[in-house]
Amino acid sequence: MTLIATPQSQHFADALPLQSGAALRDYSLSYETYGTLNLDKSNAVLICHALNASHHVAGVYAGQDKSEGWWDNMIGPGKPLDTDRFFVIGVNNLGSCFGSTGPMHVNPETGTVYGADFPVVTVEDWVNAQALLLDVLGIHKLAAVMGGSLGGMQALSWTLQYPARVAHAVVVASAPNLTAENIAFNEVARRAIVTDPDFHGGHFYAHGTVPKRGLRIARMIGHITYLSDDVMNEKFGRQQKLAPTLPAAPRASVEDAARHGALPPEGALAPWGGPAALAAAVPPYKYTTQEVEFQIESYLRYQGDKFAEYFDANTYLLITRALDYFDPARAFDGNLSRALARATCKFLLVSFTTDWRFAPKRSREIVKALLDNQRDVSYAEIDAPHGHDAFLLDDARYMGVVRSYFDSIYKKMGGAL
Amino acid sequence: MTLIATPQSQHFADALPLQSGAALRDYSLSYETYGTLNLDKSNAVLICHALNASHHVAGVYAGQDKSEGWWDNMIGPGKPLDTDRFFVIGVNNLGSCFGSTGPMHVNPETGTVYGADFPVVTVEDWVNAQALLLDVLGIHKLAAVMGGSLGGMQALSWTLQYPARVAHAVVVASAPNLTAENIAFNEVARRAIVTDPDFHGGHFYAHGTVPKRGLRIARMIGHITYLSDDVMNEKFGRQQKLAPTLPAAPRASVEDAARHGALPPEGALAPWGGPAALAAAVPPYKYTTQEVEFQIESYLRYQGDKFAEYFDANTYLLITRALDYFDPARAFDGNLSRALARATCKFLLVSFTTDWRFAPKRSREIVKALLDNQRDVSYAEIDAPHGHDAFLLDDARYMGVVRSYFDSIYKKMGGAL
Repeated sequence: MTLIATPQSQHFADALPLQSGAALRDYSLSYETYGTLNLDKSNAVLICHALNASHHVAGVYAGQDKSEGWWDNMIGPGKPLDTDRFFVIGVNNLGSCFGSTGPMHVNPETGTVYGADFPVVTVEDWVNAQALLLDVLGIHKLAAVMGGSLGGMQALSWTLQYPARVAHAVVVASAPNLTAENIAFNEVARRAIVTDPDFHGGHFYAHGTVPKRGLRIARMIGHITYLSDDVMNEKFGRQQKLAPTLPAAPRASVEDAARHGALPPEGALAPWGGPAALAAAVPPYKYTTQEVEFQIESYLRYQGDKFAEYFDANTYLLITRALDYFDPARAFDGNLSRALARATCKFLLVSFTTDWRFAPKRSREIVKALLDNQRDVSYAEIDAPHGHDAFLLDDARYMGVVRSYFDSIYKKMGGAL
Repeated sequence: MTLIATPQSQHFADALPLQSGAALRDYSLSYETYGTLNLDKSNAVLICHALNASHHVAGVYAGQDKSEGWWDNMIGPGKPLDTDRFFVIGVNNLGSCFGSTGPMHVNPETGTVYGADFPVVTVEDWVNAQALLLDVLGIHKLAAVMGGSLGGMQALSWTLQYPARVAHAVVVASAPNLTAENIAFNEVARRAIVTDPDFHGGHFYAHGTVPKRGLRIARMIGHITYLSDDVMNEKFGRQQKLAPTLPAAPRASVEDAARHGALPPEGALAPWGGPAALAAAVPPYKYTTQEVEFQIESYLRYQGDKFAEYFDANTYLLITRALDYFDPARAFDGNLSRALARATCKFLLVSFTTDWRFAPKRSREIVKALLDNQRDVSYAEIDAPHGHDAFLLDDARYMGVVRSYFDSIYKKMGGAL
């Protein structure tokens, strides 16, 4: 049965105090729900999203093909997080460009679009806003909060900010804070956006421009860090991008290559017999610095172009900064074990072996800190080739672990299995 | 004794045929030499440079403080490559912006600056030009050719293009070709440069502009890949950049933080007691998306700014493309063992454990391919924390290995030790 999703919006009249000291007033949160809230409101699962996702977590929109939610492989009827059992909530974070109040909206204080004046929001601020939405929905305690990557940071923060309101936390491909390298990649992406002349200090809406150059670079950098070296080599390797109208040159044998002079005579000045000889064995290089030569270049440019068409530049700055700032151990002199002492719920941590953005060792830091506090924690390190992106992809072991975990939650809730 | 370096230039009237099919005429190579060429001209060592280096390999320029060559820790009197024994040659590659003919020079065909019209040059082209310089110097056979990173690719290519002219090759922190991820990082850097409005299709000289925004981004990306995650965490971690005029806030104890309310009351909306409380324990965040918050950001911006002041944008495109294109196994259906069959010299390969740009496994591919051909190859995998940059840094084991190797070359040449 196809799950039909219906986006909703909740307006909040009271100002939200932010961690920065600023406040956000007259704001709205976009959200979706799937499944049915039970009578004692004990089966709610909150899904927190990562960088470029939204409240549209599962299902499709009526009449719209290919509108699946970003975690539709994970969440739905009969899926690992089964919406026949759980009431699942997807919520779009403040500062986003997909519905909830963000930099593209009008600042009620000034009557003009926020742009760069949208206040810096943190993981903690998002969690506070999510908690207010749960209040509206009448949900006091979540059966689980779940997220991957930046979403996992929100799930972790829920267990610290509202320990009595969470029974289980599922933290996937996440980290207790960013490393210097993580921050460095974010900073290069931000500089690409901010130094794009079309950015206009973040007030580009008023200029009728979009800093697409910067957004493209930001997305290309991001994509490299989402994939593993291995999967990039497998998918693209050194494959050349051939002109679509020309058939690929026939791949002659190495013997042919030698016969045609691809092996240079000893001490020859002309390298390797010249390009004509090489062309007999492999597609010729174009010898270009600005055109696409390799498939990986074509892929990255495509991803960058696509992203620049729909993503907001100020949102990109805000969300990468929320990543940078998250660091629950900060108030505890860097001691994560003491920071996580407040968490009382049960945990499932999942990491992926080839994820070098949020490597397994980062998840193990969380596991260790929880164990130091005698918490109930399960940990799965999934041997998957796809790098950080693995948390969004189908993998039988990964899906199986999450399914088992929610099965056990459901069983403990007294549900019929 | 201080080694004084004197840059020289050699003009070539005959056109150099390039791998692309184009040719370069009326070109010059800048170079430096250190030490004395012996009577039978058998003690010459050629040094090949990497991305942003030059012919100024060792020594200092007379009267110029802090003008050490880029491998001055490795090369000089009494150093691992001892200029009291060897005649060392540093040569600047074609397409560079440090002296040899490049995109900033005038195209004799048109009378205007080359800019983006400078032909694409490859590792093989550079090696051919270097061989012509050796002809001028009367050196038929090198005691050794040596290089790190892209310089190591040139050293490897020497052994394939001119096997009879090389006795030893020292290939440090290099690879037999780029991976898809390597190409991807190069491509993002190139796109940042090419899409900078000040690039003007590569003819920015005529517009009196420099695409500094793009160069900065390119250099920032590069720097991340030169360092290891570990050394970045050690050097910068999550250290904040504090305003230089304000003393750092005193680091109060965790108990103080708790007393001041940095621990949130259960279910509190205001996160963590607010910024005032946090400030008592750690320096406050600025909550900014565009200003520097962390030391790593400050470091990267500084490196980017510095680079954009002196490096040429077209050179950056050319050199990263030379990296992309290098692939000696390409004419052999990807079979590196067959590609390296032509090499007859002895080899020293060196890699560094934390180098994720040119990881040790890439050096081991070369070692294996040489062993498949029963070549004489030594391999040192140095446990160093500094990532790719390690090849430029002092490390006792690294320096010791190179010293021993050149000691043994010298001994075999009949030199007194």
